[in-house]
Amino acid sequence: MRMMPASEFSLQRQVEYGSEEQNRSVKSIIESVRLEGDAALRRFAQQFDGVAVGELRVSEAEIEAAYAQVDESFLAAIRGAAANIRRFHEKQKRTSWMDLQPDGSILGQVMRPLKRVGLYVPGGKAAYPSSVLMNAIPAQVAGVPEIVMVTPPATAGVEGIDPHILVAAAEAGVREIYRVGGAQAVAALAYGTESIPAADKIVGPGNIYVALAKRYVFGVVDIDSIAGPSEIVVLADDTADAAYVAADLLSQAEHDEMASAILVTPSQQLAQAVAAEVARQLESLPKRDIAAQSIRDNGAILTVASLEEGVRVVNQLAPEHLEILVADPFQYLSAIENAGAIFLGPYSSEPVGDYFAGPNHVLPTNGTARFSSPLNVDHFMKKSSVIYYSKEALLQNGEQIIALAQHEGLEAHARAIQIRLQKEGNARG
Amino acid sequence: MRMMPASEFSLQRQVEYGSEEQNRSVKSIIESVRLEGDAALRRFAQQFDGVAVGELRVSEAEIEAAYAQVDESFLAAIRGAAANIRRFHEKQKRTSWMDLQPDGSILGQVMRPLKRVGLYVPGGKAAYPSSVLMNAIPAQVAGVPEIVMVTPPATAGVEGIDPHILVAAAEAGVREIYRVGGAQAVAALAYGTESIPAADKIVGPGNIYVALAKRYVFGVVDIDSIAGPSEIVVLADDTADAAYVAADLLSQAEHDEMASAILVTPSQQLAQAVAAEVARQLESLPKRDIAAQSIRDNGAILTVASLEEGVRVVNQLAPEHLEILVADPFQYLSAIENAGAIFLGPYSSEPVGDYFAGPNHVLPTNGTARFSSPLNVDHFMKKSSVIYYSKEALLQNGEQIIALAQHEGLEAHARAIQIRLQKEGNARG
Repeated sequence: MRMMPASEFSLQRQVEYGSEEQNRSVKSIIESVRLEGDAALRRFAQQFDGVAVGELRVSEAEIEAAYAQVDESFLAAIRGAAANIRRFHEKQKRTSWMDLQPDGSILGQVMRPLKRVGLYVPGGKAAYPSSVLMNAIPAQVAGVPEIVMVTPPATAGVEGIDPHILVAAAEAGVREIYRVGGAQAVAALAYGTESIPAADKIVGPGNIYVALAKRYVFGVVDIDSIAGPSEIVVLADDTADAAYVAADLLSQAEHDEMASAILVTPSQQLAQAVAAEVARQLESLPKRDIAAQSIRDNGAILTVASLEEGVRVVNQLAPEHLEILVADPFQYLSAIENAGAIFLGPYSSEPVGDYFAGPNHVLPTNGTARFSSPLNVDHFMKKSSVIYYSKEALLQNGEQIIALAQHEGLEAHARAIQIRLQKEGNARG
Repeated sequence: MRMMPASEFSLQRQVEYGSEEQNRSVKSIIESVRLEGDAALRRFAQQFDGVAVGELRVSEAEIEAAYAQVDESFLAAIRGAAANIRRFHEKQKRTSWMDLQPDGSILGQVMRPLKRVGLYVPGGKAAYPSSVLMNAIPAQVAGVPEIVMVTPPATAGVEGIDPHILVAAAEAGVREIYRVGGAQAVAALAYGTESIPAADKIVGPGNIYVALAKRYVFGVVDIDSIAGPSEIVVLADDTADAAYVAADLLSQAEHDEMASAILVTPSQQLAQAVAAEVARQLESLPKRDIAAQSIRDNGAILTVASLEEGVRVVNQLAPEHLEILVADPFQYLSAIENAGAIFLGPYSSEPVGDYFAGPNHVLPTNGTARFSSPLNVDHFMKKSSVIYYSKEALLQNGEQIIALAQHEGLEAHARAIQIRLQKEGNARG
C-alpha cells in the first residue's frame, strides 16, 4: 500500500457524463418508451435482457413465494435492520409550522410527502437487499403513499428476480414491483406507460445507462444523486488497532477496483502496521483481485504531522465514509466539515452502518459530501410556503411593496397592490 | 381570455435542454475557463459583453458609492423586505441531534452550512434586487461563511453593475462580488480561477446559457433547480373580487410571453367578470404587449363543477404560485398537494410574497412543485450521519451484520466485524 505525506497526495475527480454513443443510446431508449410505452419495455427486455416478459408486474403470489426461498437467519437480520433504519429515519420527520404575526398575518411552511416514488434495483449480483431497505424505508417514513420498485427481469447468469430482493421490498412495505430494468425502466418511471404510472422521483443505484437516463429525465421528475465509486477514509492515531483499520479499509476495497480506501495518521508505527495487515488480510479474501487493485490504484496511507492536520486532509477529501479511531473520537467531531457518515471509535466499523445501525448507507460520493447529504426523509418530502396576509399588514406595507415592484419595472405587480389599497384603504377610512 | 371546462384543458410541459449549438458553446466556454482561468474570463467579457474588465472584483469603495446612488425609499423597502425574509428563514434552521440508545450507542445527524455559495445575478433589466435578497439571505441564515456574487460587467444598454443590485447584496451581507457573467461565470464558480475560488453550490436565475452551464457542472458543485417560466393559478369562488383576481393574473403575465396565468373557478359569473377585468386592466399596462401575448397563449379561465374539483385541477397543474380567494381559504389548505407558494385570502396578492412578506420567491416552476420546494435554508446546509457503536451493541448485533454481508457476497465486510468479535468477545469472557 503506497505511503506518503498527505501534502504530496492529490485526488483526481471526474464527473461521469458517459460516451457520446452511450448518451445517444439512452436518449433513443427514453424516447421510444415515451412514445410506445409498454411495447417498448417488452422489446428492450427481449433485446437487452434476453427475456420475453409476460406480466410486467410481479404478483402477490410471487412475493409470498419468495418468503419460502429465503432462510430464517436472513429474514431475522433484514427485519432487525429494517426496524433500526425505520427508527433512525423517524427522528428526521418534520412538521408543518406557522408563524403568527402581531398584525394578524400567518406565514408558514407546509411539509408533505411526495406522492409516488420509483426505486431502481439493479439485477444479478449488484442486487443488494440492504439497498432496498435503505432506499425504500426513508420514503415510507416520509409518508409516500406509492412506492414502486423496478428491477431487470434477468441478468447474465441470474434468472428472474432474486427472492431476497422481493422479501426486502415487502419488509420495507413495497409491493408494487415491475420487471423492467435499464434506461427503459427510468423512462417508464419518468413518463409512465400503460402499466406503470409515472413517479415524482426516482432513486436507487444502477449502471452507467441507468445513471445517464436519470440525468436525462431530471426536471421531469426528481432524482437522487448519481453515485460514484465507494470511498472510506480512516483517521487514526496510535491507539487504533491496526488489524481493525486494515479490515475496514479492505471492506471498502472489495467493492470494486475504483473504490478508494485511505488511512490518514500521524503515527508512523500505525502506518507501517496497517500496511502489513492489509497485505496479510488481503491474501485470504475471496475478492482479493478486486481489493488488491483498488488498494494499489486508489488506496493510500497518508502521514500527517498531527490529528489537526489529519482533520484538514479529511475535509479536503470529503469522504463518503469517515472512521475516526483515536483516543477520544468525539473531540474531533465538530471540526469535520465534509463527510457523508462519520463512524466514531473502535466498534463502529463501517459495515455496522452499511447494514444495521440505522443511518442510511446511501451517501454522497466523489467529494460531494461538500454539499450533499446521506439519503434521508427530507429527500421524499416537499415544502410549500403559506402566506395569509392580513388587511392590516397590506395597508401597512403596501407602499413599500409598490416601491420595490416599480423599481423593478413591474407595474402590474404594483397595481395588484394599489387596487387593493384603494378599495380597502377607503373602506377603512 | 380563453375560457373552458377544466376537463378540456391540458398543459404541455417540456424540459429545456437547449440546442446542440448552445450545448457545444457552453461546454467549450466551461472548458476554456477550467484550463485558462481569469484569462478566459477577460476574453469572454470582451467577446460577449463588449467590456475590457479591469479588476474582476468589485471594490468596497464601489459598494459604498452605490449607496449614494439609490434613493431613501428604495433603501427602506429593501431593508424592510430583508428583515422579513431573514425572520421567516430563521424559523427553518435545524439543529444537530443525537439518539442515545440503551446499549450505549449514539446515532445522530450533524447539520452544517455549506462553506462557499455562489449567487448568479443576471445583468441589465433582468437584474432584480429582490432576487438578490431571496437567494442570499437563506444562505446567510444557514451560516454559509462565504457568499459570493457574480454578475455581468455590462449588458445591452446598461453600463456596469446596477447600484441597486450592489446595495441589495450588501444588505444581504454579500461583499465579495465579481464582474463576470454567462456560462463563464458558472464555470469560474464550479472550478475556480486565480481570482475566484471555487464554490460548493451555485444558485440564481440566468438565461439559457447560464442554465445549461449549471446543468453541466452539476455534480462538481450543487446547483439550484433550473427555473422555467413563471406561473400563477388562482382558485376562486364568487366571493372573490374580480378586479383583484384580474390584477393578480396580469402581474404574472407581465413577466414574459411564456408566463402562465390561470383562473380556476366554479363561478360562471366570476369567470365572466375576470375575463372582462383582464381586458380592461390590460389596456393601460406599460407591458401590455407581453402580458397580452402571455394571456392569449398561456392564460386560461377553467371552469369546474365545485371547489373540490378545482383543488384536483390545481394539484394536476402543480403551480409555482397558488392564490386561494374563497370564503374560507384555510378550509382547502390540507387538500393542496402541489404548489410552490400558497397565498390565502384577498389581501395575499402574489406581489406580497414576491417582495416583502418573508417566504422565498424562488419557487418550483414547470410542474416541479410535485417534488421540489421553495428555496430555503436546507438548500444551504448538508447533513452527516454519526454512528458511535458501543462494544455491547457490536457483540449483540455482530452476527446479524455478518449474515447480511455474507449474503451479499461481501466477505471483507463480514471479516471487519468478525475480527472485532473475536478480540472483544474474548476480552469480555
